Amino acid sequence: MKRIGILISGRGSNCEAIAKNVLAGNIPGAEIAAVIANRTSAAGLDIARGMGLEAIALPSRGLDREAYDAQLIGELNARNVDLVCLAGYMRLLSASFIRAFPMRILNIHPSLLPAFPGLDAQHQAFDYGVKISGCTVHFVDEHLDHGPIILQAPVPVLMGDTADTLSSRILLEEHKIYSEAIRIVISGRYRIEGRTVILEG
Amino acid sequence: MKRIGILISGRGSNCEAIAKNVLAGNIPGAEIAAVIANRTSAAGLDIARGMGLEAIALPSRGLDREAYDAQLIGELNARNVDLVCLAGYMRLLSASFIRAFPMRILNIHPSLLPAFPGLDAQHQAFDYGVKISGCTVHFVDEHLDHGPIILQAPVPVLMGDTADTLSSRILLEEHKIYSEAIRIVISGRYRIEGRTVILEG
Repeated sequence: MKRIGILISGRGSNCEAIAKNVLAGNIPGAEIAAVIANRTSAAGLDIARGMGLEAIALPSRGLDREAYDAQLIGELNARNVDLVCLAGYMRLLSASFIRAFPMRILNIHPSLLPAFPGLDAQHQAFDYGVKISGCTVHFVDEHLDHGPIILQAPVPVLMGDTADTLSSRILLEEHKIYSEAIRIVISGRYRIEGRTVILEG
Repeated sequence: MKRIGILISGRGSNCEAIAKNVLAGNIPGAEIAAVIANRTSAAGLDIARGMGLEAIALPSRGLDREAYDAQLIGELNARNVDLVCLAGYMRLLSASFIRAFPMRILNIHPSLLPAFPGLDAQHQAFDYGVKISGCTVHFVDEHLDHGPIILQAPVPVLMGDTADTLSSRILLEEHKIYSEAIRIVISGRYRIEGRTVILEG
């Protein structure tokens, strides 16, 4: 079994969607090792516990990046985590963390990268006036919202949309493609050429 | 009738698609005033003549931007052009030209802007490893590939795609949404807020 560690900072709705799919057997060969939040108040911790998962608060407040990430690596390694999934995790990862899990960290971003990296991507896209936005699951590298893309889903901006209604529809797609991307990565049926993830069969 | 002037530099396959739709009555209230190429060798000129359209070679070679654009404005105004459509027109327009047709110049770009502006957008997207690309029809403003977006269409990157097969599928979508965007602009059923084109009804 490949063991997934999920990092959250808040509610972590993508965490819940992934966990549901794992528990339902929709991601063959995967199990959830732990859900770890960098804030003790993260609502996702109780949700994870309610699903019978180990949920750990590991507060980052006051710690510098290297010191905190060393703790985080320790907790993940102690649980034999194979794949780290970021789900609304609001801290940048250190280079040490990324080296500790090479091409084994996934993130989801609420835009069609490389458009609208960074915070509030849905609002950025809405304010830009795009007619198609979407979401992206990608490997995490040392640059923000930048690593090789595993899956993307388009989401049209509809008449009468606000940034919030658009965000809600993007989130529905996030919940689908994040689990699908994890399934692909865990299956091993892909290779990476340049920065392109080539799906195999 | 609203009169469309189409600017090309080469084959102008979008020009042909627009002209077919206008001639078939698919864009109510529109007629083609002229097709103008900045290269005498542009293959689109003969295609346009074959469709019974006025096709003009107005060579730009050796002329600076302001001098050429002044000629171009003259030709378009002499034909009472209401709407200028760029179709593979490989020259930047001067500020004077843009002011001469305020929010009356459309362009199509083979990516989901703001991703991959500039030349070879399809190859840029393919090399970046996106899983969703597409095309964009937008009003032309003083910045490259930047003005308010009228329509976009997503195009998935498929297993086995090359940059060329992807380009071909994007082109099919270009041919659809460019005419649809012209239909919207000519109908007047839109307004612009900030840089967002809001379609009405």
